[in-house]
Amino acid sequence: MVGFTSYMAAALEEARAAGLRGEVPVGAVVVGPAGVVARAGNRVRELCDPTAHAEVLAIREACRMLGSERLGGHDLYVTLEPCPMCAQAISLARVGRLYYGASDPKSGGVEGGARVFSHPQCHHIPEVYDGISAEEAARMLREFFANRR
Amino acid sequence: MVGFTSYMAAALEEARAAGLRGEVPVGAVVVGPAGVVARAGNRVRELCDPTAHAEVLAIREACRMLGSERLGGHDLYVTLEPCPMCAQAISLARVGRLYYGASDPKSGGVEGGARVFSHPQCHHIPEVYDGISAEEAARMLREFFANRR
Repeated sequence: MVGFTSYMAAALEEARAAGLRGEVPVGAVVVGPAGVVARAGNRVRELCDPTAHAEVLAIREACRMLGSERLGGHDLYVTLEPCPMCAQAISLARVGRLYYGASDPKSGGVEGGARVFSHPQCHHIPEVYDGISAEEAARMLREFFANRR
Repeated sequence: MVGFTSYMAAALEEARAAGLRGEVPVGAVVVGPAGVVARAGNRVRELCDPTAHAEVLAIREACRMLGSERLGGHDLYVTLEPCPMCAQAISLARVGRLYYGASDPKSGGVEGGARVFSHPQCHHIPEVYDGISAEEAARMLREFFANRR
């Protein structure tokens, strides 16, 4: 069955691959009516680019493929609660639904911190579904940071 | 005299050029100890990229030039109050000082809205100076939107 768990599984694969490259293991997938449009893992270190979070890379790639700066009718799956930069990019891209895995009380910007979607200055608010495969996403992050100590 | 007004003048030039390309006229400049490192105007429509705000493009270019995902010791000049995406990118890049022109009560994320720098989840807070050449920056935006009606 193709559904939200399989899309999150693809995001988790991207996260795992990012971890193997020495990046913080976060992965994201953009899904349209016909299935996966773009997928990406974090590449901040590789690209020397502080904006190269998984969500931003997946959104940029999906927009490039579609020839549009907006992704109406598309959903985004990401293994970790987006930071404020990524949350705003999701809003600017008009993503329909945001599915994310683990919460990020330390750096997140959706359910905590800046809560980007909860201000009148946010002109498009996606539907938000959290906690999808959260345990696996969180375990991957814990192991990554434990191994770096 | 080279100083913050001349750097903001360069950002205003970028904003003007963006407007001539049909983009919302916002410009940004990254300045290091030896002067301007990168400059950019908004290219959202041209690049079909919702993240291609002036600040993000200037930060990415400066990081590429310096071979680092961090811009410690560098300042950013932008003609308009950054949105939450750009504010968080400025934080992630460890920009030292943020100088901006006009306030953006409708979409800004620094002094209003998400107020990205004012939460414990924001791990680096730049020094912020607002209102630099604000009148010219605001006039350019007003004229742009008036002409589109």
